Amino acid sequence: MLYFKNDYQEGCAPEILQALTKTNEMASVGYGLDEYSLEATKRIKEAIATPNAEVYFLVGGTQTNLCAISILRPYEAVIACDTGHINVHECGAIENTGHKVITIPGKAGKIDLAALEATILAHSSFHMVEPKMVYISNSTELGTIYYKEDLIKLRALCDKYHLYLFIDGARLGAALTASSNDLTLPDIAKYSDIFYIGGTKNGALFGEALVIKNENLKSHFQYLMKQRGAVLAKGRLLGIQFNELFKNDLFFKLARHANEMASLLRQVFIKHQIPFYVHNDTNQVFIVVDETFYNKLKDRAAIEIELNLADGKLVLRFVTSFLTKEDDIVALDKLLDNITK
Amino acid sequence: MLYFKNDYQEGCAPEILQALTKTNEMASVGYGLDEYSLEATKRIKEAIATPNAEVYFLVGGTQTNLCAISILRPYEAVIACDTGHINVHECGAIENTGHKVITIPGKAGKIDLAALEATILAHSSFHMVEPKMVYISNSTELGTIYYKEDLIKLRALCDKYHLYLFIDGARLGAALTASSNDLTLPDIAKYSDIFYIGGTKNGALFGEALVIKNENLKSHFQYLMKQRGAVLAKGRLLGIQFNELFKNDLFFKLARHANEMASLLRQVFIKHQIPFYVHNDTNQVFIVVDETFYNKLKDRAAIEIELNLADGKLVLRFVTSFLTKEDDIVALDKLLDNITK
Amino acid sequence: MLYFKNDYQEGCAPEILQALTKTNEMASVGYGLDEYSLEATKRIKEAIATPNAEVYFLVGGTQTNLCAISILRPYEAVIACDTGHINVHECGAIENTGHKVITIPGKAGKIDLAALEATILAHSSFHMVEPKMVYISNSTELGTIYYKEDLIKLRALCDKYHLYLFIDGARLGAALTASSNDLTLPDIAKYSDIFYIGGTKNGALFGEALVIKNENLKSHFQYLMKQRGAVLAKGRLLGIQFNELFKNDLFFKLARHANEMASLLRQVFIKHQIPFYVHNDTNQVFIVVDETFYNKLKDRAAIEIELNLADGKLVLRFVTSFLTKEDDIVALDKLLDNITK
Amino acid sequence: MLYFKNDYQEGCAPEILQALTKTNEMASVGYGLDEYSLEATKRIKEAIATPNAEVYFLVGGTQTNLCAISILRPYEAVIACDTGHINVHECGAIENTGHKVITIPGKAGKIDLAALEATILAHSSFHMVEPKMVYISNSTELGTIYYKEDLIKLRALCDKYHLYLFIDGARLGAALTASSNDLTLPDIAKYSDIFYIGGTKNGALFGEALVIKNENLKSHFQYLMKQRGAVLAKGRLLGIQFNELFKNDLFFKLARHANEMASLLRQVFIKHQIPFYVHNDTNQVFIVVDETFYNKLKDRAAIEIELNLADGKLVLRFVTSFLTKEDDIVALDKLLDNITK
Repeated sequence: MLYFKNDYQEGCAPEILQALTKTNEMASVGYGLDEYSLEATKRIKEAIATPNAEVYFLVGGTQTNLCAISILRPYEAVIACDTGHINVHECGAIENTGHKVITIPGKAGKIDLAALEATILAHSSFHMVEPKMVYISNSTELGTIYYKEDLIKLRALCDKYHLYLFIDGARLGAALTASSNDLTLPDIAKYSDIFYIGGTKNGALFGEALVIKNENLKSHFQYLMKQRGAVLAKGRLLGIQFNELFKNDLFFKLARHANEMASLLRQVFIKHQIPFYVHNDTNQVFIVVDETFYNKLKDRAAIEIELNLADGKLVLRFVTSFLTKEDDIVALDKLLDNITK
Repeated sequence: MLYFKNDYQEGCAPEILQALTKTNEMASVGYGLDEYSLEATKRIKEAIATPNAEVYFLVGGTQTNLCAISILRPYEAVIACDTGHINVHECGAIENTGHKVITIPGKAGKIDLAALEATILAHSSFHMVEPKMVYISNSTELGTIYYKEDLIKLRALCDKYHLYLFIDGARLGAALTASSNDLTLPDIAKYSDIFYIGGTKNGALFGEALVIKNENLKSHFQYLMKQRGAVLAKGRLLGIQFNELFKNDLFFKLARHANEMASLLRQVFIKHQIPFYVHNDTNQVFIVVDETFYNKLKDRAAIEIELNLADGKLVLRFVTSFLTKEDDIVALDKLLDNITK
Repeated sequence: MLYFKNDYQEGCAPEILQALTKTNEMASVGYGLDEYSLEATKRIKEAIATPNAEVYFLVGGTQTNLCAISILRPYEAVIACDTGHINVHECGAIENTGHKVITIPGKAGKIDLAALEATILAHSSFHMVEPKMVYISNSTELGTIYYKEDLIKLRALCDKYHLYLFIDGARLGAALTASSNDLTLPDIAKYSDIFYIGGTKNGALFGEALVIKNENLKSHFQYLMKQRGAVLAKGRLLGIQFNELFKNDLFFKLARHANEMASLLRQVFIKHQIPFYVHNDTNQVFIVVDETFYNKLKDRAAIEIELNLADGKLVLRFVTSFLTKEDDIVALDKLLDNITK
Repeated sequence: MLYFKNDYQEGCAPEILQALTKTNEMASVGYGLDEYSLEATKRIKEAIATPNAEVYFLVGGTQTNLCAISILRPYEAVIACDTGHINVHECGAIENTGHKVITIPGKAGKIDLAALEATILAHSSFHMVEPKMVYISNSTELGTIYYKEDLIKLRALCDKYHLYLFIDGARLGAALTASSNDLTLPDIAKYSDIFYIGGTKNGALFGEALVIKNENLKSHFQYLMKQRGAVLAKGRLLGIQFNELFKNDLFFKLARHANEMASLLRQVFIKHQIPFYVHNDTNQVFIVVDETFYNKLKDRAAIEIELNLADGKLVLRFVTSFLTKEDDIVALDKLLDNITK
């Protein structure tokens, strides 16, 4: 069986496992107030070049999203594109915190500025929710990325209408190491109000580092976390992991590897003349196939059906990870040789 | 510095770390559907002698409590004693899911049956919430434990008034290995509707195994978890840990060790004629001291102030863990020699 | 000033005012348990030919919608078309109860069956909410109505996928007295699981009568109402009003009058060659005009801008009520003579 | 049957009914933006001598409480005494908005300052909720009232710890016209941050006027109301009623009458040597009787059992209203003659 199902199918980078082993018997205070978490916070603030930011470590992506959005007042809503993770794949977690997710049609997984502005303007009285936050993910659910020009325009629009910009960075590593990327971690901090750096999908056992830059959003965030069961007792486990990720460029190395494997994967699909559903350069690859093809593939490779198209074809998602090996790509190539001949 | 601050101040049992290391590079499906989680589920069902139970693995205690209680309909309330963890130390997590926590005065951390029945009877119309669940913890927040007779009576009362009994087992290991304990894991399953087996405070890196026995409570629980951000992407991390805990009696060995260390600790306090705040035989030890004593101690030993008594005295909490060493107890003894002389 | 702003701009039908006056000094028990409420309940059960239904009286539409939908479990979602009142004009009330509103594109304000089925099928795991209720309004927010054939198909689809059908009847009177209508009150009860009969927009001072037919939805509804502040202390005020509405066919008479006035209004617009935005036969009339026209009109007639079209034109909404007079229509005709010449 | 069950058992003061009748056919804008509501707002601001206050009209008490408290952030809690309406008789409405109600033992229905301060101080970390609002009712659920000295001290304590003071004035009329009262409406506004003036229990058909004085609490309150279904479509009904209540001293006349009737009632109980449960001078009278007495009374007089005492005796509540007549008191006197002889 070949595994391209997701980027959280294995454990973690060896450096992280070593650090957990090394520190295992040391005692430390709980709930993220330990020295490892403090050190990781320091490293992250340096990496994002934002000394006044606050950094909180959470366990997973949905948890991070719902805590971050619960910063809003009850009648304030978050705008996301229709493919947004908070709209589709979080079982209504945001609505369960009491907030409406307003959806607008995305363009290859990215927010369309004109649609965004029209939606903001359409909300004009107390009979409707008040749009207050824009949610984007980078890389997106379709593996596409935002460019500096995108963020500059989004920031301007958010400023114009007094909205917060929240960047879901579950796959931020993949975005920032993509071949066409022109953004840096400090840029991400600069153009957003709040964002997170994903560990779970980039070589940590688990963990997301949430960064709050906007002063208005900082107050009592630990209370919001605790109230949602999002404060890890052995908080140091998160500190230790992010400490490693932000030592020796590990965070970027792991992401770069996944992207490189995806690049090889794309070459294999091109060779086999299998069309892409979307063009992108991060660690998710989407192809369009028919059901016969999928049926031949599914018992040999663990993958996801992303979409059932109206014409009966399927969009398949292949994901590479920090642990994907060139051998896996070669094996897939051979498998496709068999299937397509 | 001596560490008696809590039972989650260190990492995990070496067996667990080895298992995580051994499985690190294997790929598996996410969200708790992997083979390790399935195996751990099987082991737990055997250990509790309840083949029809459902088992879910969550990351922490507050998260587990709020997911379990969100099973209730909105107007249904949970009754807890005033010292209950859900009432005091979860930042209103239960109320934030929309449910009232009705509190009744506890007796050494345990529910008083007469007060419980009176409270149930006092709720009699749609102007008031409907009591529907009783929450207890075993061992309790004061380190005391429930006995078989207690649970039989509680069960009968719950049956009489159609309430669910939920046992918070964050420290269930400590309870079931206490010297005076007369309950088994199958008993816990037998007398409750839903309960959890705590890993975080008993030698796991993190993790709680929630067991749902009552058929009425089983439907769609994963949806409730996901909606609250409580489904771990790399769910196998939980499976691997509980697999180890329920191999070779490890869960009980770790808890027994912590209790034995607490027993030695009590002897030290007795020797120094320091009175206990509550008499118990699990891994939490509560003593009553004056402020002078505390001030001498606090820079040498990491502990918690549990309570400020009306007479100005302090209740201090010492907690032993799966990693506490006899040397730590000996060192504390010497420290007390210095302080009390 | 001519008033076509809405159908709740005046007080109530004289019969209702008389009944309130006549009963004013009588004492009765509170919270809807009084004799008037019981009598109104009896009349409604007869009118809907559903003796086992439960009837609850609430004050307003948003309140009724949020109470009705809070019957669902937290992860269960309601599907509405994009123009649905719960999606647009209730300030996120449904989401604030914790439930996602899944929207699908409507056809002239009505649910499209194919889109509905596709949406249901797209929700397939615990990562997504569980669609459990379909919300429609009759008449719709665009003044269109559902026909028997529509409801039969919707019912079949709901049965197929185990969804509840909820009919928002804020303007049910207008729907059931429309010239093309082929549904009766018993039909509404027959094809839905839960629905309400609107009083506020049909001649009552305020009040909606919620009917729960499906046995699964009946339990403890008063608790849900009370918890949301929706139980009126002087509940008899609602009973007295619905008693009058369901005496002597008053409910239908009032609605029929509003529809007739709308019909005259349409003739006026046709005469002036002003195009309609949507074709319908209830008490809301939507026309398409340019901004110049609107600017001439707005200080002489109280109306609403329903939509700003992409081409710069405006959709205006005119609403007639139980109190609209033929003289108002004649006056509008003259006003248009002036404006359009 | 004699009716002393509550102060909302009848309709409304005749002045209100006349005003509703007189304005019935006039058209006005909805949702509280009409001229009547604006005029009522003006009158109330004058009556409370607080020109910068914001005034909102809501339908009922529980609704008003839950909207007012939803101003808080999710982790912020409200402190009430154990007998507080929000703690006991609102079916968990406050918790359902996500906020914990922290209860402290009351003294005759009033907050005890020492207990309040101790409770505030006991909340000291993000593991616990943050106390942010104190809720009191005046008159209280036991018919007692707060004096100027009480409010001065409460205000000082709230200022010291940065808490808001919220006064539930469902029976504010009864409090301010009690014989021992030394507070004025401007005092109520002066010492609180937010409070409401009850109409439902003082001669209106329904309605509570919520006054927000503290600038921090003013933002977007209509959104919070709308989201909770608390914006009445025909908002003018509330405006018209409060307009009448604040014309010609009607609000105080109605309350004074109820209190005078309660005073006569007390004399009857004294004459019959029936002991009071609590000493007070507003329109609720609490007596202690045995079950035999109650059984003789219950079919002749509509009253409430307030409490079942531990010794088997009952506390009965008699309430007088704006419509209670001296004849009713005389009739009760005769009834007691029969029962007690």
